[in-house]
Amino acid sequence: MRLRNVPGSRELIAISPDVVHDEKSKKGHWKEFFNEREGKTGSRPLHVEIGMGKGTFLMEMARRNPEVDFIGIEKYSSVLLRALEKHAEEPELKNIVFVRMDAEEIEEVFAPGEIDYIYLNFSDPWPKDRHAKRRLTSDRFLDRYRVMLNGGGGVTFKTDNRDLFEFSVESAVKNGWMVQEISRDLHASPYAEGNVMTEYEKKFSGLGNKICMMKILPSRI
Amino acid sequence: MRLRNVPGSRELIAISPDVVHDEKSKKGHWKEFFNEREGKTGSRPLHVEIGMGKGTFLMEMARRNPEVDFIGIEKYSSVLLRALEKHAEEPELKNIVFVRMDAEEIEEVFAPGEIDYIYLNFSDPWPKDRHAKRRLTSDRFLDRYRVMLNGGGGVTFKTDNRDLFEFSVESAVKNGWMVQEISRDLHASPYAEGNVMTEYEKKFSGLGNKICMMKILPSRI
Repeated sequence: MRLRNVPGSRELIAISPDVVHDEKSKKGHWKEFFNEREGKTGSRPLHVEIGMGKGTFLMEMARRNPEVDFIGIEKYSSVLLRALEKHAEEPELKNIVFVRMDAEEIEEVFAPGEIDYIYLNFSDPWPKDRHAKRRLTSDRFLDRYRVMLNGGGGVTFKTDNRDLFEFSVESAVKNGWMVQEISRDLHASPYAEGNVMTEYEKKFSGLGNKICMMKILPSRI
Repeated sequence: MRLRNVPGSRELIAISPDVVHDEKSKKGHWKEFFNEREGKTGSRPLHVEIGMGKGTFLMEMARRNPEVDFIGIEKYSSVLLRALEKHAEEPELKNIVFVRMDAEEIEEVFAPGEIDYIYLNFSDPWPKDRHAKRRLTSDRFLDRYRVMLNGGGGVTFKTDNRDLFEFSVESAVKNGWMVQEISRDLHASPYAEGNVMTEYEKKFSGLGNKICMMKILPSRI
């Protein structure tokens, strides 16, 4: 998702207490970071959304799951700014933070086994073949997720782009992931219960587009 | 597949030495049956094609895999007759037999764990929703296959009908099967090697249709 550039968005992001700026120094230390931020002790699951957009989905997830910590990753400042504006309305929502970064760098930000769950929502389809490796469900990215996810973790992927979806299903199977849930019409499927809609999802499904969803686990053995 | 009725086809099938007529009495005894037929001893894998059509695929499989026994199931006499005509040209191909029956009755013909592998090729799509349970990849059939397959067994399904394919993938995942291979363009995929084409497959892919394929295993645990 890109938005018209918002003047000053980088500066506003720079002073936000809900954005982590030195994300690479947090690698392997995210649980301590959240304990300090929330004034808690112990270990809670860490869920990450890659390409968070305006943050509607992840903030609702954070509200519904106070015992989970959430990190929203977004590349574009102007988009991240919208999430920050929304979050500013409920500063008590401490179990979520944001990082402005490119997904290409995730290995520098998360240690092996550090993440418990990954969400990919309406990711850029990169429709040209020569850009296939940039898709967030390409071999390269799945290999990275496998390393970063702990044993029980998984990935939920949603899109209304059928071509991207079929590419993603085949990529997951080819790379040895286990398909645990799949639907090409999520809202009419048994998996609709508990589904939190993204902004895109509301818009696209409102236009009559069917939403595709799969849940995959790194190992099928 | 249906063909114009061929007068006398039932009678010709009745006298064929390559058709098993008392298939229900073979339940649990197929390995002994093949040992006797081939003058062999021991235990070889048993592969079954449900909805064999004219038998081109299964006979090629039987040629390539002399250490596997094959059973081709076909509902229509006129279609089965074509397979028998082809088989009559190479009567030395003993590791294959045919059964004229409806797939609905397979549980009466195969004992639990008796089958090592199942092939479903270009099955009837039964496109109407109210006929969904007749599709060979519906819940009911998958449950039957699970019982009849032994621990290491699986199902390979091919079709050029995208709707039937997506139905089948979702049905398999929903019923707890593990998707081990999947492609919506089999002939351009890494799974093309060793693929034996059916008559339908040659015809449809010759017309430019892409062939969908999945290989599924009954348990993903």
